Amino acid sequence: MDLKKLLTSYQTLDQKTITLIGRIRSNRQGKVVSFAVINDGTDINDVQVVYKSDIQGHEDALKARVGSIVEATGKIILTPGKPQPFEIQATAITLLDQAIEEYPLQKKEHTPEFLREIAHLRARTKTYNAVFRVRSTLAFAIHKFFQEQNFVYVQTPIITSNDAEGAGEAFVVTTRSDDKYEQDFFGKKASLTVSGQLNAEAYAQAFKNVYTFGPTFRAENSFTTKHASEFWMIEPEVAFADLQDNIKLIEEMLKSIISYLFEKNKAELEFLEATQEEGLIKKLEGIIKADFAVMKYEEVLEVLKKAISNGHQFEEKNIVFGLDLGTEHERYICEQFNKKPTFVIDYPKDIKAFYMKENDDKKTVAAVDLLVPGIGELVGGSQREASFDKIIQRVRDMKINEEELSWYTDLRRFGYFKSSGFGLGFERLVMYVTGMANIRDVIPYPRTPKNLLF
Amino acid sequence: MDLKKLLTSYQTLDQKTITLIGRIRSNRQGKVVSFAVINDGTDINDVQVVYKSDIQGHEDALKARVGSIVEATGKIILTPGKPQPFEIQATAITLLDQAIEEYPLQKKEHTPEFLREIAHLRARTKTYNAVFRVRSTLAFAIHKFFQEQNFVYVQTPIITSNDAEGAGEAFVVTTRSDDKYEQDFFGKKASLTVSGQLNAEAYAQAFKNVYTFGPTFRAENSFTTKHASEFWMIEPEVAFADLQDNIKLIEEMLKSIISYLFEKNKAELEFLEATQEEGLIKKLEGIIKADFAVMKYEEVLEVLKKAISNGHQFEEKNIVFGLDLGTEHERYICEQFNKKPTFVIDYPKDIKAFYMKENDDKKTVAAVDLLVPGIGELVGGSQREASFDKIIQRVRDMKINEEELSWYTDLRRFGYFKSSGFGLGFERLVMYVTGMANIRDVIPYPRTPKNLLF
Repeated sequence: MDLKKLLTSYQTLDQKTITLIGRIRSNRQGKVVSFAVINDGTDINDVQVVYKSDIQGHEDALKARVGSIVEATGKIILTPGKPQPFEIQATAITLLDQAIEEYPLQKKEHTPEFLREIAHLRARTKTYNAVFRVRSTLAFAIHKFFQEQNFVYVQTPIITSNDAEGAGEAFVVTTRSDDKYEQDFFGKKASLTVSGQLNAEAYAQAFKNVYTFGPTFRAENSFTTKHASEFWMIEPEVAFADLQDNIKLIEEMLKSIISYLFEKNKAELEFLEATQEEGLIKKLEGIIKADFAVMKYEEVLEVLKKAISNGHQFEEKNIVFGLDLGTEHERYICEQFNKKPTFVIDYPKDIKAFYMKENDDKKTVAAVDLLVPGIGELVGGSQREASFDKIIQRVRDMKINEEELSWYTDLRRFGYFKSSGFGLGFERLVMYVTGMANIRDVIPYPRTPKNLLF
Repeated sequence: MDLKKLLTSYQTLDQKTITLIGRIRSNRQGKVVSFAVINDGTDINDVQVVYKSDIQGHEDALKARVGSIVEATGKIILTPGKPQPFEIQATAITLLDQAIEEYPLQKKEHTPEFLREIAHLRARTKTYNAVFRVRSTLAFAIHKFFQEQNFVYVQTPIITSNDAEGAGEAFVVTTRSDDKYEQDFFGKKASLTVSGQLNAEAYAQAFKNVYTFGPTFRAENSFTTKHASEFWMIEPEVAFADLQDNIKLIEEMLKSIISYLFEKNKAELEFLEATQEEGLIKKLEGIIKADFAVMKYEEVLEVLKKAISNGHQFEEKNIVFGLDLGTEHERYICEQFNKKPTFVIDYPKDIKAFYMKENDDKKTVAAVDLLVPGIGELVGGSQREASFDKIIQRVRDMKINEEELSWYTDLRRFGYFKSSGFGLGFERLVMYVTGMANIRDVIPYPRTPKNLLF
């Protein structure tokens, strides 16, 4: 029987004999009885096995080190009033595999830095077990949400010859050790994708509702707690949809996936609230309950100016049209001003990507960022420019390779009526939901500059 | 209203007025009434809009070219006895966006080769719409199957410094145009992963049940219908599980995902059966109904020898221990001998990977391949070598970089008791299930040697 099943059905198993294979978390010899705490990885909670000296395998059981694998057979005894609701009174314990004495995860506190060096082992700790189980559930919740709404999952390419919006530097993919790319594997320069959006947009014209969910890459030398060289993105795209539809979809998606998480991983969230972020659960419940606010970018500027005149201190005080809002501004808007998640729309054209739809004022675009308490921007999206002439002009103005992108801009010539979509950085979401402060701690094997282990 | 909703609820909508936005598939002017067939991408089936000369927007409607986007408002009229069960009698049609005359997807047959050149448009055809919808459903079915069994989805790294089992050539990932990798972004040579298995195995020791589902890469100059440079793999891994558990999991997974596909995409499968592979549905039903056979590799050899002596012609006739079974042998076993999916187990050690568990006979390993009628091998897996000494010996014998893999082999020192898993090439599964004969036709934007478009 696996531990998860045992933990959900123990009440019906009083006095019944069961067998469980698991890893030793601790093993303490007492005068009369000894106690082994074991876990098989299927649940965040452990089970305590109590064993006396007359059981089969007693000697081996006593020797079993932390990290070792044992098979325990015994009777379930309900223990109302004790911290754990039941224990196993062993009749036999078999030591299946003994861990070495130098097992790195002894029963004590370890720093995140130390645990990153043993990324292949850290998911055995309660914290990382919770984090990576939440990550898995969130990934599934996203698929579930979109599939139930008849969205088609499009696995857009990882190796690409275009770099989306020129966002950041791209890694080169090659089989050569020089730059003669015309003689390279693909006969031209190839890179790792920075976004699947443009490819997904073409598919939205075929299926109406599509989404991508795959890895993306940035060759940026950023040594921050928020940047990784490899991370996953979710990029939905809906044909015939405008910015308002987009906003509605973002709000529904977030509420749906967080609700699903509460349903599946309440224990993990409670553990993370206790160890990582006070108020985590209330913060997440806030997302589910709130009616998100919507503000125009220019309204945001007015609020920020007023805040400054009322004595609020921002590092960037020069609040003028064209300012790329900083995290401090974003957090002020959603935490202090609206006190709830806030969509900011209609950003200045010049600080946004070429494919965003120009508004009638000719100076702003139909962009949207979702700001959430605690971190600021979580999602960014837009309605796409539908006019062939306008998007070509933007491509030229921004000196993007027109020829390389012609397949994309040509979509406007092959029957096109509105399209909107957004991007959600998956790791940013996992950090937000788990309370983990460093992106390296929400990726199983993180990749950052000068760091390529496992 | 979107088309899918309309097609599932039309019976309750007789004489009701609805509005639909969609793309023109054909537009034919008749003497009294004209006919526009439109589709919004949410369903494989189209809807026919009938319009007379007195409707609002009649002139524009007549002009609307194939590929254009229109909004049609009209009354649902049930048409029992006709091929389509209902039609829309339009009261107004608005031409939202006119496609250019040179729209590449005119209403006629196109070759797969031509359609590959317009991969950004081909999902608008019925065939590719069906293929990529099935692909999406299959991807979700796989997640659903594993999540419901409490497997944790582990997103293993794409950029890696080890190349798993040395399977095939790997692409280099770099920010330089020379081979001074010690000065490169990661401070060492980096490649694109060929498998997430080893990383997943470490996580199975933390969660018991895990699976990966992500892109993998091969820099092989293969110009076949079955090879792509970028493809997705599913790699489940279960701690404390042996080869028999593995076999059971493979069979359950396949039956579950194909059943889910019948539930969701019956219309697409029927279309693909009619256009791509006769007997497709019967073949897939066979998977669901069959009790898969299990045979040892050496039993397979005996059957093949007997077949030859009975006059069966194989290209490779030298049936000796150590032979890597060809597709012809695999298909003979599952199609002619067992007439159902067949697991072959206990392959010669020398033709299998270093991490597979050596059997007591010292010459075979606890490997399993699943052979299915129509293609041969679909899944490959094994129980892993649990002995630290034995796996180190194998690493040395096969001249694999021992140091680079020490984190993986060390798992055997940190408490280890059995582990089994398998790999399923996602595109191979999609080809099998859709009847498509070329891997380029089941990947949205395929990557093959000298081919990097979009």
